[in-house]
Parts: sequence; C-alpha cells; structure tokens
Amino acid sequence: MFSIDTYVARREKLKESVKTGLLLFLGNEEQGLNYEDNAFRYRQDSTFLYFFGVTNAGIAAIIDIDNNKEIIFGDELSIDAIVWMGNQESLRDKAARAGITDVRPYSELKKYLHAALVKSEPIHYLPTYRAEHKIKLLQLLNVGIGEETPSVDFIKGVVNLRNYKSAEEIAQIRLACDITADMHIEAIKTLRPGMRESEIAAIIEYVALKNNANLAFPTIATKNGQTLHNHFHGNIVKQGDLFLIDAGAETDMGYAGDMSSTFPADKKFTDIQRTIYTIQNNMHNAAVNALRPGAKFEDIYDLSAKVMVEDMKSLNLMKGDAEEAVKAGAHAMFFQCGLGHMMGLDVHDMENLGEVWVGYNGKPKSTQFGRKSLRLARELEPGFVLTIEPGVYFIPELIDKWKAEHQFEDFINYTELEKYRGFGGIRNEEDFLITETGYEMLGKKTPLTPDEVEALR
Amino acid sequence: MFSIDTYVARREKLKESVKTGLLLFLGNEEQGLNYEDNAFRYRQDSTFLYFFGVTNAGIAAIIDIDNNKEIIFGDELSIDAIVWMGNQESLRDKAARAGITDVRPYSELKKYLHAALVKSEPIHYLPTYRAEHKIKLLQLLNVGIGEETPSVDFIKGVVNLRNYKSAEEIAQIRLACDITADMHIEAIKTLRPGMRESEIAAIIEYVALKNNANLAFPTIATKNGQTLHNHFHGNIVKQGDLFLIDAGAETDMGYAGDMSSTFPADKKFTDIQRTIYTIQNNMHNAAVNALRPGAKFEDIYDLSAKVMVEDMKSLNLMKGDAEEAVKAGAHAMFFQCGLGHMMGLDVHDMENLGEVWVGYNGKPKSTQFGRKSLRLARELEPGFVLTIEPGVYFIPELIDKWKAEHQFEDFINYTELEKYRGFGGIRNEEDFLITETGYEMLGKKTPLTPDEVEALR
Repeated sequence: MFSIDTYVARREKLKESVKTGLLLFLGNEEQGLNYEDNAFRYRQDSTFLYFFGVTNAGIAAIIDIDNNKEIIFGDELSIDAIVWMGNQESLRDKAARAGITDVRPYSELKKYLHAALVKSEPIHYLPTYRAEHKIKLLQLLNVGIGEETPSVDFIKGVVNLRNYKSAEEIAQIRLACDITADMHIEAIKTLRPGMRESEIAAIIEYVALKNNANLAFPTIATKNGQTLHNHFHGNIVKQGDLFLIDAGAETDMGYAGDMSSTFPADKKFTDIQRTIYTIQNNMHNAAVNALRPGAKFEDIYDLSAKVMVEDMKSLNLMKGDAEEAVKAGAHAMFFQCGLGHMMGLDVHDMENLGEVWVGYNGKPKSTQFGRKSLRLARELEPGFVLTIEPGVYFIPELIDKWKAEHQFEDFINYTELEKYRGFGGIRNEEDFLITETGYEMLGKKTPLTPDEVEALR
Repeated sequence: MFSIDTYVARREKLKESVKTGLLLFLGNEEQGLNYEDNAFRYRQDSTFLYFFGVTNAGIAAIIDIDNNKEIIFGDELSIDAIVWMGNQESLRDKAARAGITDVRPYSELKKYLHAALVKSEPIHYLPTYRAEHKIKLLQLLNVGIGEETPSVDFIKGVVNLRNYKSAEEIAQIRLACDITADMHIEAIKTLRPGMRESEIAAIIEYVALKNNANLAFPTIATKNGQTLHNHFHGNIVKQGDLFLIDAGAETDMGYAGDMSSTFPADKKFTDIQRTIYTIQNNMHNAAVNALRPGAKFEDIYDLSAKVMVEDMKSLNLMKGDAEEAVKAGAHAMFFQCGLGHMMGLDVHDMENLGEVWVGYNGKPKSTQFGRKSLRLARELEPGFVLTIEPGVYFIPELIDKWKAEHQFEDFINYTELEKYRGFGGIRNEEDFLITETGYEMLGKKTPLTPDEVEALR
C-alpha cells in the first residue's frame, strides 16, 4: 500500500468532484475456474485499490459525502480460517492504513444502503464488468440484471483522478515496465525455429512470476501476428516466420506494463521483413516524437497513419493522396488497431469506466473501421501514461472482404497486395509518461530497430 | 476432442440413467479480471466438456430425453470477429465431431426452455459455481439468485459416469501426471536458500506452459507448509527451512494431475526433519498398499491416521490407544486434511456436484474436525482415479486453540509439542488408478523417500 495520506487525499478530491450523494465501491470476489474453490488468481477491483488499497476479497466501501462517512464493509477471518490460512493482518488494521477507521460487518452494507434509499439519497455506482457485480447490485439495490445505470458523475470523478499519475504511481509503473522489458528480452533471445509458441509464452510468464509480478493480461506469443486477438500458443515456429509478442507485467500493487515486440524466427530479417518492419518503425518514431502536452492523440494517430501510407506508396501497395487515404480510412487495410491507450492500474486503464470518458473526454468516438479502435484521442496532459503501438498487418480475411466489396480501390493496389497476403503482422509497443515538456519512456529499453533486434538474436 | 463415439455413448448412458425430462448444460463464459475484455484464461465447464467436448465460450446444450433431441445453442463467429481472431472451425463442425447435428442460435435457448416450462416438463440443471450461471438460470428459468434447486437425478447420472475413467481418459490423466512430475522434479532441483518462493512457483508454471499444458489449480510453493490454504509466494527461503509444493498440470483436453512434494532448503534433511518426513512416508505407504477395489477409502484414512499416531507416540508427542485417538479425532492435531480425492476433468473431480455424491455415494459426511475434510470415503471401484496425500502439520494457531480448550489431553502431549511449534508441515502426494486387482501409479515417479529427495537436491 502507499502511505495513508495518498488514500485520504484521493478520496478528498473525489468528494470535491462528485459533491453530493453516496458512492458505492464494490470490491471483487474470488471466482471459480471449474468449481467454486478452484479459484482464478484473485485481483481486487482497480478503483477500489486506488481509493482504499485493501486487497481482501468480498468487501465493499461507501463514501457517504453528505453524511461525511467513509466505511469499509467486510468480515474478519474466523479462527477456523486462521487455522487454514495462517494469521493475517486484520481488515481493521489494513483499513486503518488507508485512513478508514469505520469498518463494519459485510451484512450491514445492505441496511446502510436501504436507509439511504428510504431517504431518497442518490446512490452512485460504477459500471459492472463481472457477473458478481450485477448480482450484488440486484441484491443490494434491487437493480435488475442488465438494467444498471452507472453514475456519470462518479465515473468522471474517478477518471479525472486516475488519468493523472503521481510520482509514486509512476515508480510502480516503471517497475512494471522494467519487468515487462525483461520478459520481452528473454523471449527474443530464446526463440528458435522448431519451438512451440507455448515455450515462449512460458518464458514470458516465468520472468514475470520470478520477479514477484503477474501477467497484466493474457500473453500474445504467435507466429500469426496478423491475428489481432490471438492467445493460441500451439503452433510450431518455422524458419522464415515472424514472431509477435504482446505481453506485460503487473506489480504486486496492481500497476501494469505493456510492450510488444516483433522479430524473425531466424537470426536475421529477410529483406521484405526488414522493409515492412521499417515501416512500423517509421510510424512508431513519428508518433513518439509528437508526444507532448497539448498534442491531440487522434492527430498523432493520423500522423502515424500518413507515414505508413507514404511508405506503402513507395512499395506500390497504396496510391493517391496520403491525407485523403487516412481521412477515408483506407490505411485500416494495414493498420486496424489503435495507436495506443492509457495505462495504470489496468493495462487499458479504466476500460470498464468507458473509453469515451477516459480517452475522449466525453466526446463521441468515430465509427469508421480502424479509427473506431482508437482507445485514446484526447489532448495529452502531463501525468498521462500511455502506450505507443502502431502496427502493420496483412489479414487475408480482410483483404478478401475489401477486395470483394471494391473498397478503397483508389488507394489500395489489390494486385500488388496479393503478393503479401501470407506476410503476417508487425507491432512494436513502448510505454510513455507525458511530462511538462514532452515525454519520457518508461522501463528498460527493448530492441526497436531491425539492427537492435538482430543484435539480440 | 475424443472420437465421436465417446461423446455419443456418454450421452446415451446419461439418458438411460436420468430416464426422463430435459437436461440443461450451461457452458462457461469468458470472465474479466479488471475489465470485461481483460479475460482470465478461458475454461469450459467440465461436465459440458465430458458430454459435448466443445470448448467455445457462451454456449449451452440441451438433452431433451422425452422428445429425443440433443441440441447445442450458440452463435457462429461474425466476419468482424474472423478479421480479429482469424478463421476458426465453425461451431456446427465442432458440434458434429461430438455427434450433435442440431445447432441453433443462442437466442433460441430461452424459447425452447419456455416451451418446456409451459408444458410442465421437468427441467434438470446442475449446481452453479459461477455468478454467470446464477444469472443465466434467473434469465432463462426465472430461478431466483440463491434459490437454485439442482437436480439430484442429473447429478447422480453425471457422477456415475464421470467417476469411472475410460482408457482414453486415463491416457490424458497419465499425460497430465507426467507433466506434473516434471514440474515437481524441476522445482526440487532448483530451490536454494536465498530464493523467493515465487521463483519456484515460476518454474512450476513454466514447465506446465512449455508442455502446452496449464496449471490445474493455483500452485502452493511455500516455506510455510503448515498453512494449508496458502498461495502467497513472497517469502525468502532460508537455510533450515522445509519447502512444500502442491501443483499440477491440466492438459489441453482439460484433464488434471496433482502432486505434492516436501524437501529441505538445504541439500540434506536435518535429523528431526527426516524423522517427521518418515512419518509422512509411513502414512503414505500404508495408504497406497491398501488401495484395491472394495476397500473403503475412509478405512484407509483411518489406517493412515493410526500409523501416524503410533509414530507420534514413539516421539512422545501422542499417547494412549491409537485406534481410540483416531476415533476421537485427536490425530487431526497433525493430520487436518483428508487423505485424497477423486481426480479427472477437475483436480477435485466434480467438486461442484457435491462431495457427498462423488466421494460418499450419497451418504452423509462426518462433522468431526479433520475427518470432515475427507473428500472421499466410499468403497473403491476399478476405474476410479484418486490422489493419496496424507500430511503432518504443526499449526501454531491450532496448537494454541486446542491447548487452551484442553482438547484431547489424554492423547496429545502438549508440553512436548511446544518444541515443534515452528517445525512447519510435510505432505507428499501421488496419483493412482484403481485397477481390477489393486492399483497403478499414474505419471513419472517423483522422489518420495528422504534418500530419493536428497539424491535430487
């Protein structure tokens, strides 16, 4: 946990922001894999961690702004549980370390909420992302499943705090990024043709666990980098393959790192691999160099996309005016995912609160294919932590679909494109803090240029 | 997947067993760690796997016995999803490989159930172990949260099939046990004083993932073996410590292995460590040698406990008649957990269906401390797969509690016991198939005797 002052100050700022009403924080429960007691790894809700720091499963908290109360609801371990689980710091002591002295049995939560309901006090809650949360809202507040109405004031209050990382948070994220870099470096050194993808996924997780960290998200470790959501690790890697890793560590305090690397299964890139890889590097460097307070992230995305279109034109894969191509969305043949996202206690920070609030400052998102996957678009400010991860992907199913639909024939040279349909995909990803004057890369350096990659192979 | 005949035959037998009504099988959903799209590893429900073999998330199935229908309800991937996730075998094709030709959109499940409800046909469902299952029963059948009434006929029908492992299942379990043995052997070789527990947990998971397997359950890797439910990996191991591992692999078809090992942080056991370790070995061997069809597992537990009491008497830690001590429950000062459990598609096989049905053949469980933790008590039959895992634990909180309560003073020598309060805990665990004539150990041999352990250190 951070110091008591951190949690007290965060809650004070939240109260100033939301101003009135009762804020309900639902902690997370243990969840069973294939039966109730065979649990997944336990993870406290990130917003609960941010304001209360207490990691116990099965607790909740209330900030009752109008009645000036801050309460944690949860139960102490029974003697039977202590026999099985060993002696642990009491919930009361943990709560005290977050500046909460009012700890009540979990069974009193419903009564407290009921009293507020009777007095028609507004009860604010956040969006649910687990079935257990929906059941709790049903049982506590009689909110029907699927009829939840999360509080926009509460969401905005949380986002407007969590978006700005403090020095102690940045230290945690830097630690996560250092471990993340080690995960990637070890994996890049290890891969050889003939290995199964799972061997690389195993090394990545090994480095995380060895460093007392966890995975921040399921590892992508694949020879099919063009398949964007891909957690299959069963293929055997062959000579000539490209290999893409997207993996990150989560520190024991819950902060995430998130990096991607692409490298050849062989010791060296082929000429064509190096050419496409260099396009990704050009997109990447253009984006990184544009990071500064006041820059609009959607403009940086456009810049990165335009760099790609110009490079694709030199390969005869695209044609026409780069600015118009990006405006029309033709770049999304190769660059379907966004440029990056906020990162903190969640790898996609606060994704459960809504990207529109986190990354768009409440403004609506585009519906254009490609651009709609942009998780972050707003003007950058000092204290933001984000990823930069442009990619170049050759997706056979997308090529076939757009070609059949005669999409963007003014910008895409489908005849030439056929030659690349089995190429795969390339992404690199690094993590950055926006500073007063520009940016700072977080975590140890991982290979980015083709020469840096080959040096590690 | 196994061959089509396997799944068809299993369903036929289940229909013969339950005889009438509609059997509802709820598959599992993806579940979010800290937001909806950051999912835990996906695991299909084991009973769904057993009868249908299809691993897709978000599907359900019905066996309508009276109307002679077998239907899988689920949706095919959209073209958008194929672009992101790559082309995959269709649900229809997967279902066909389990002998199911009737595949309908998920949205039709509710209509089908509603029609059956209207006709007052009995609808059988199994116990829920995830919040998502409870929500589904509420939405599909209007069953209140916490008011589920699982079908005993359905439970018994499933248990009476899944308890008997076929040759193809045994091959899968043997594979899981081989990988599990490698996980333990690698960990035993690696530990040195000064390491953090997490380094050993990391190696264990590395070996599982590298072999295209997963963890069957969260790894225990601890210097505090006396803490029975302990997944903390943050301690530094010191000279003189004992180290306990309980870990197992799950194959990609979902079958589990489960072994435990205890070994010294140093190259050799101390004299007292060797003495207590040998007690565990004696308990273990007595139990293994008693495995045969017709033997009652609770009797084997009693036998193992009595062996321990006799050994404890020779150390002056216990006194009196061993049979009476075990009958009274005094052995549970040192041997609090059960002797073993069924193992298959779940590491505690079918724990969600109820231990009384799986391990007690419907007979009630004891409420005595220690004995009540016995997951298996029934007479053994050929085809059962189970673990043997007696342990000797010195739990300071339990010593203090029983001493203060003057428990079992005729059997326990509390003065002598004080000398051992910091000793820790010892457990070894192996996996066995009950054969027509006796038993067969599953998986590669791991060190069991003190000499075998020291040889690997």
